[in-house]
Amino acid sequence: MNLKNYIRDIQGFPKEGILFKDITPLLNDPIAREYCLEILLSSLNGLKIDKVVGAESRGFFFGMLLADRLNAGFVPVRKPNKLPFKTISRSYNLEYGTDSLEMHVDAIKKGEKVLIHDDVLATGGTARALADLVHELGGEIVQFNFLMELSFLNGREKIKEHSIFTVITY
Amino acid sequence: MNLKNYIRDIQGFPKEGILFKDITPLLNDPIAREYCLEILLSSLNGLKIDKVVGAESRGFFFGMLLADRLNAGFVPVRKPNKLPFKTISRSYNLEYGTDSLEMHVDAIKKGEKVLIHDDVLATGGTARALADLVHELGGEIVQFNFLMELSFLNGREKIKEHSIFTVITY
Repeated sequence: MNLKNYIRDIQGFPKEGILFKDITPLLNDPIAREYCLEILLSSLNGLKIDKVVGAESRGFFFGMLLADRLNAGFVPVRKPNKLPFKTISRSYNLEYGTDSLEMHVDAIKKGEKVLIHDDVLATGGTARALADLVHELGGEIVQFNFLMELSFLNGREKIKEHSIFTVITY
Repeated sequence: MNLKNYIRDIQGFPKEGILFKDITPLLNDPIAREYCLEILLSSLNGLKIDKVVGAESRGFFFGMLLADRLNAGFVPVRKPNKLPFKTISRSYNLEYGTDSLEMHVDAIKKGEKVLIHDDVLATGGTARALADLVHELGGEIVQFNFLMELSFLNGREKIKEHSIFTVITY
């Protein structure tokens, strides 16, 4: 199965000059989605995971499925003022603008094994912020995984001390 | 198991006077999360579901798990300008303000059996918009399900022609 057939190119979204990779066809197809999930899971080689961190909001999709299959807690990381409880925060630069991310202070306990998931590894700004948030709470990052990597943006340089797995590379 | 122990009350979020029900403790606990998911699934009595519709963004969490277990496609419904492909749209009133929701035009095919999921049934404005979007594409709504119902807001009145299931009632 070629998973690229389930990723749709959208020219000029969200801004002119950006070629956006739309994963909604993949979410909409249970066979392709399961195939993709199995690839993500197999990359972990059975390693124990206590918490899966998923970034708002496309990281929630496969992040939840990974947490389910790994019998792990799911930790949503969100844009500012979206999480209702006490949070920690990190600012970052992204492919098209700047933003910051928040995580609940009680989401991860010291020493817990953490898998960080997002849909796409682009410039690595989001990924770096996710790593910093997990470290601030004392979590140990087992792996970063992504559905897609835009390798020409060289985002993996920002998280190079970690294990990184991506299903599809562009 | 009392699932209310995994829902945290947050006073004054997102606005003064609102008592927000925070489901992140439920997401963070794999045993409680699975227990909740099984309750949602059992309410369907094995009915065939082609597509699960989940509303941005707290409806994505259990919406994805339901789609996975039901072997159904997942359809994210999002706030304006978040979905990259061609969309249909509905405006609605919600508990604290107004907004609109969008769905990709190719997300549901005519005659498909649809489960609509969201985290909370409050005033029913979001739920009504979700139903209208599904109907516009020709989908048949099998059930609405919610983690929580704020019954004092009487939201079920807005979708009373449909089957409605809620795990927790306040």
